[in-house]
Amino acid sequence: MANIRLVLEFDGSNYAGWQRQPNGLAVQQVVEEGLGRLLGASVTLISSGRTDAGVHARGMVANFHTERILPLAAYREGLNGLLPPDIAVQEATLVADDFHARFDARGKWYRYCLCLNPVRSPLNARYSWQLRANLDVAAMTAAAADLVGVHDFQAFRTSGCAARTTTREIFSIDLLAAEKLLYIDVRGSGFLRNMVRVMSGTLVEIGLGKRPVNDVKRLLLQDQGQAGRTAPPQGLCLMEVWY
Amino acid sequence: MANIRLVLEFDGSNYAGWQRQPNGLAVQQVVEEGLGRLLGASVTLISSGRTDAGVHARGMVANFHTERILPLAAYREGLNGLLPPDIAVQEATLVADDFHARFDARGKWYRYCLCLNPVRSPLNARYSWQLRANLDVAAMTAAAADLVGVHDFQAFRTSGCAARTTTREIFSIDLLAAEKLLYIDVRGSGFLRNMVRVMSGTLVEIGLGKRPVNDVKRLLLQDQGQAGRTAPPQGLCLMEVWY
Repeated sequence: MANIRLVLEFDGSNYAGWQRQPNGLAVQQVVEEGLGRLLGASVTLISSGRTDAGVHARGMVANFHTERILPLAAYREGLNGLLPPDIAVQEATLVADDFHARFDARGKWYRYCLCLNPVRSPLNARYSWQLRANLDVAAMTAAAADLVGVHDFQAFRTSGCAARTTTREIFSIDLLAAEKLLYIDVRGSGFLRNMVRVMSGTLVEIGLGKRPVNDVKRLLLQDQGQAGRTAPPQGLCLMEVWY
Repeated sequence: MANIRLVLEFDGSNYAGWQRQPNGLAVQQVVEEGLGRLLGASVTLISSGRTDAGVHARGMVANFHTERILPLAAYREGLNGLLPPDIAVQEATLVADDFHARFDARGKWYRYCLCLNPVRSPLNARYSWQLRANLDVAAMTAAAADLVGVHDFQAFRTSGCAARTTTREIFSIDLLAAEKLLYIDVRGSGFLRNMVRVMSGTLVEIGLGKRPVNDVKRLLLQDQGQAGRTAPPQGLCLMEVWY
């Protein structure tokens, strides 16, 4: 019995998110079906977490146990030959029997991408939230600093979040400008449902002057529903999970 | 009568290139039809040049003459409201009556994007040529320097090129690495058909060690057909045209 860890990159545009579900095609289902064909046996993937419909990943981690032992390159190359163009295995490694992609995750890096342009930008439409406005990046950076640390983030989740506890640790938030793009890089121990998207939406509202720069401090003491809008999914990418 | 200059950005994935043609939908046709609806009169666009099927543009320039005088913002916003998501006007400006987008162009900047990754990268598939190999960037940079200057580029065009003369000036070629991406930025006075893609394909073959680093010097004395393969269209973007 081998425990194989996969790192997956996918364009989430055409998927109903990572997790299998009755309505719509999930990335998990496509990868599991590919593995089923490769190994001739059904496989269940354990992922580092879920991603929502339309969210992308550069480094989603998932593991599976199998008795069909192949050379490691065969998991990667063989599976890639069976996956559609918008999903690809980047790495396949043999890990300890007790490795668990969700329970063992120590942190995650999400990137939210904004495109700031006076008109819509077709070449950035697929992987960013297009804002036809100027943002006060200094105000956003100051507000982002207030999110860093151990806090109760219940104001920064959305309905449907099943987490029992709402305290999480944000290690860092970095705002990086690259021509007309502005990246919000968030690293943390774990995330509530839509947390990065609600954080990004709130920071954007601060950048637009719709909320005061010190609003994050107030929100960290509030209930769900007080924060900014949930930023749209196509701007979000799960960049890396570390163990 | 006004002469209006447009700067257009488009994702060329779903188009048969810039120029109107019997087989397939061209970007020119879509923009002209949008202008026709906006102005209630048929319009012919004069572009800075053509782009091939599947090639993108961040800054295609085109002008048109019209007797329907609108506020400049109306050309931009009104036309964007009539264009599909993969085409958008970035700028609309009033120019002198004798401005001609092709004849007056003094130079163009094209970017060819390579994605170097051991496996295919879904998030880079739309806008790069994916090469599952390492490239000798130093050899490519040395070879690129041989392309700079005034040369007869007949070896670097493809069949169907209607240009009568094949001497052009390349102002600069810069190779820029950005994580797994490698950009080939080419600036020049004008370009033969597929010239940037043949240059890029040749530089890649040099980077792979399939051609000697001094092969460009030899090719500049050769006829058409001796250079490297034409790099695929989705890696190419017309970045800017200047006047």
